Amino acid sequence: MSKKYSIGVDFGSLSGRAVLVDVATGEELAVSVFAYPHAVMDEYIPGSSKKLPPDWALQHPQDYLDVLSHTIPNVMKSAGVSADDIIGIGTDFTACTLLPTLKDGTPLCFLDEYKTNPHAYIKLWKHHAAQDKANMLNKTAEERGEDFLARYGGKISSEWAIPKIWQVLDEAPDVYEKADRFIEAADWIIWQLCGVETRNSCTAGYKAIWHKQKGYPSNDFFKALDPRLENVVDEKLSRNITPLGEKAGEITPEAAKLTGLKVGTAVAVGNVDAHVSLPAVGVTEPGKMLMIVGTSTCDVLLGEKECIVPGMCGVVEDGIIAGYLGYESGQSCVGDHFDWFVKTCVPSGYMMEAEDKGVNIHKYLREKASVLKPGESGLVALDWWNGNRSVLVDVDLTGLILGMNLLTKPEEIYRALIEATAYGKRMIIETFRENGVPVNELYAAGGIAEKDAMMMQIYADVCNMELRISASAQTPALGSAMFGAVAAGAEKGGYNSIVDAAKVMGKVKDIVYKPIPENVAVYDKLYAEYKILHDYFGRGGNDVMKRLKNIKKSVIDK
Amino acid sequence: MSKKYSIGVDFGSLSGRAVLVDVATGEELAVSVFAYPHAVMDEYIPGSSKKLPPDWALQHPQDYLDVLSHTIPNVMKSAGVSADDIIGIGTDFTACTLLPTLKDGTPLCFLDEYKTNPHAYIKLWKHHAAQDKANMLNKTAEERGEDFLARYGGKISSEWAIPKIWQVLDEAPDVYEKADRFIEAADWIIWQLCGVETRNSCTAGYKAIWHKQKGYPSNDFFKALDPRLENVVDEKLSRNITPLGEKAGEITPEAAKLTGLKVGTAVAVGNVDAHVSLPAVGVTEPGKMLMIVGTSTCDVLLGEKECIVPGMCGVVEDGIIAGYLGYESGQSCVGDHFDWFVKTCVPSGYMMEAEDKGVNIHKYLREKASVLKPGESGLVALDWWNGNRSVLVDVDLTGLILGMNLLTKPEEIYRALIEATAYGKRMIIETFRENGVPVNELYAAGGIAEKDAMMMQIYADVCNMELRISASAQTPALGSAMFGAVAAGAEKGGYNSIVDAAKVMGKVKDIVYKPIPENVAVYDKLYAEYKILHDYFGRGGNDVMKRLKNIKKSVIDK
Repeated sequence: MSKKYSIGVDFGSLSGRAVLVDVATGEELAVSVFAYPHAVMDEYIPGSSKKLPPDWALQHPQDYLDVLSHTIPNVMKSAGVSADDIIGIGTDFTACTLLPTLKDGTPLCFLDEYKTNPHAYIKLWKHHAAQDKANMLNKTAEERGEDFLARYGGKISSEWAIPKIWQVLDEAPDVYEKADRFIEAADWIIWQLCGVETRNSCTAGYKAIWHKQKGYPSNDFFKALDPRLENVVDEKLSRNITPLGEKAGEITPEAAKLTGLKVGTAVAVGNVDAHVSLPAVGVTEPGKMLMIVGTSTCDVLLGEKECIVPGMCGVVEDGIIAGYLGYESGQSCVGDHFDWFVKTCVPSGYMMEAEDKGVNIHKYLREKASVLKPGESGLVALDWWNGNRSVLVDVDLTGLILGMNLLTKPEEIYRALIEATAYGKRMIIETFRENGVPVNELYAAGGIAEKDAMMMQIYADVCNMELRISASAQTPALGSAMFGAVAAGAEKGGYNSIVDAAKVMGKVKDIVYKPIPENVAVYDKLYAEYKILHDYFGRGGNDVMKRLKNIKKSVIDK
Repeated sequence: MSKKYSIGVDFGSLSGRAVLVDVATGEELAVSVFAYPHAVMDEYIPGSSKKLPPDWALQHPQDYLDVLSHTIPNVMKSAGVSADDIIGIGTDFTACTLLPTLKDGTPLCFLDEYKTNPHAYIKLWKHHAAQDKANMLNKTAEERGEDFLARYGGKISSEWAIPKIWQVLDEAPDVYEKADRFIEAADWIIWQLCGVETRNSCTAGYKAIWHKQKGYPSNDFFKALDPRLENVVDEKLSRNITPLGEKAGEITPEAAKLTGLKVGTAVAVGNVDAHVSLPAVGVTEPGKMLMIVGTSTCDVLLGEKECIVPGMCGVVEDGIIAGYLGYESGQSCVGDHFDWFVKTCVPSGYMMEAEDKGVNIHKYLREKASVLKPGESGLVALDWWNGNRSVLVDVDLTGLILGMNLLTKPEEIYRALIEATAYGKRMIIETFRENGVPVNELYAAGGIAEKDAMMMQIYADVCNMELRISASAQTPALGSAMFGAVAAGAEKGGYNSIVDAAKVMGKVKDIVYKPIPENVAVYDKLYAEYKILHDYFGRGGNDVMKRLKNIKKSVIDK
């Protein structure tokens, strides 16, 4: 029997990438990246000179189709693999990334009469213009004592589905009316591939307030938000939710033409970038937290029972691996934090020396910072430059650095910012543990995890846990390819479950970052200081950060 | 009658400068600067290859004599003024800057057998190697309930006379034994000019724990420190203290040869750079605080009665102007603060743009920072990069910045650091007021005060007080020249008191920084936040800064 392959496609914020994987080994044979021609539309939509309001972030569905038509033929060609040997395809997306469509899946923005209406386009995850809707939703839910809030750290984010849909209803009722469906891009792309509308349990659970036993919030609740929303679930969404690991359908003749795949190739249900990554590092059991470290960090973790953990982003049954509770938490400012520092605080002497040495400034700073001992700088920071996602869920918190003297050097501040994110991580882990969700091992994926050995060692030392790194440079795409192999099933040369697939295809690097006892001892002391400051500034001891924001606002508004 | 002139000589840390002044107008006709050939000796003394221990800072007395022989002839020549028309000379020094001499004033380091002994040299104010002696002195004074501590903010500094003398006794008993006198450089230079040993009330009071009514601490106290110190005052110092404004003597034939001045020219008693500056801005009455803004800031202020103000540097009767209580306070990190920022935190883009524009980076940052409204940055900082002198008197405090987000810009941090020093100033002023010492007007001198209009406006706004700037670029030297004119007396064409001299010769610029009501309102709110943080981190609410220092120490010592 010839070798079998699957393809995973990871749709990011600015580009999509496909990876072609050997199903029997997990080996990645080819990668292809395609940048979205429209990128993120935050100022204009095509053919319109009307500027979008602040906080908008749109995408164009044609870009996603272009990713498919470019990258899939590319990886087959590069790897020299025939479509006959591709047994399945899986995809993952940023979420909540949502669009209005007709009954047949046609995006409203493809229609002539709607193509100049911004609300007809895709609202990207970071479209933040529905904040007032989120606020009203949270207020109403609290007043009504809705129990779902607790599953989402006490707050529904403006990034999620209901606030975004409500914004459309409020600002463009004709679009709302015309839309037969509101659907996650994660599910829409699957619809394009196999011609079947499905809704995956991950985005339904984490982004649309769906619960496996309890379903969606009641129609009464939606009615309380706005009478016109009363039947939104039945009219525009779906109560038919498919668990991750299922097959959504098979490549249609149209999709075969688009992608070069064979008609009948298995297609997995949609998935989300962070969540799809867990089996890609070989993890399909509870107690092992994977953090995807990028501009921000997203953590995913399996548990055996539903626990309410303060400040997590969500707990969803079947949300990551079917049969388990999937927990998600996050830190809003990680890579962004270091980029801010490099852009704002690195003196020219350092920049020039890095240039002379021909190294990236981050690498240069890491080299200088890595010779420092834990505690040597005398600094401690709160990693709240972009607010705090977990465990405080408070966007109004801001950053803090403490302990500077006249000899404090840039690399010391840089290291303190890295350490601050590690303390934030430990705070999350301890909060999970204290609320009944075990966390025993740590995994990391993403560019920073791969490149920054110093940071990974700091995380191992601060958390006093072994830390393993994803072996793939395309972790989400690999995870998607694995789900593609599961959709095909063992009979077709794939796997019958993601657990089976993960055993073979999921991989971590050989290196394990082990906690160094003397560092652990110092970081225990430093973390104790972080915790005192965290609670003082984050839990009401001194709301100075919020008061400063209010002063700022009142001054700017003048 | 021909015009009359006086000369003031200001001895700084790295150079001395003379100014020749028209006594009738205060006009400065000539300035001459001479850099000390030995500068600050913190690694080696001449002719020795033995490295000095950490924290040492020595000077060479010959450098001071060279200042006199170079600058005094220079200013007379530049101004075209004959020695016949110079009626008096005054000088001021950094303090406590102390040296051991023979009975006739010969510095021990001038003797062949002592010239390779570091303890025979001058210990500059910033010689910090007597910290253990200061600690023991403070402990003993506390245990004995000595009341003098309260007059010095609760602590005698390691920079002051008794710890420095004790260090000599302990580490070089032969030098101590050989020294007939320990004398402030401020008084030693007067001795060289007029051949008479005098001790001025300013250095005696602020640096040697002398009190006009109570004298020095008791012999019993000194005995408790070390039995060999029991009679240190009578053996090595003097109980004969001369108030500021008195004449110390007249130029001797030797001094005339050295300086080109005429034998018999009046010489004022010694003085200190900050304190001599108050009359130079025309202030000789209570309630008007002068801050000398440099790397650090020193504040001087007159009061009518002796009040114990927590955290001030000292209160001394006749310490600034005879007949008044002289109050001193300070901030340890002002110009140093901004220099640290520029050295450590300014990105290369800013450096290049400043260079392109041909402006100093501080000026460039000020331009950017000056367009910001108070409160607009959302930042607040604690100005403790170098500890806190007043009102907390705690060298173990460190810096803090709070409120950063991903859009925070360098100029916002720069402005926040400036504002932090202004909040520190207001804290000092309020503490004086709360403890019975009125402060009604603000004056500033020094290079930063002259150059940084934005900072001065911020001080006026934060303190809600009018702020005036010294008209002289050589404020201390002008003050010294005024005391020279007073030493000469009205009969010789000078003045009978510094009050009379100040009315004519003391000057401020025409510009007055007036508080802007809308800024005052915002800064009131921001100061309230500063105060909460100041007290939380500075008064025991959270001793994290000290614990971090301890962690740092334990890590480095390993």
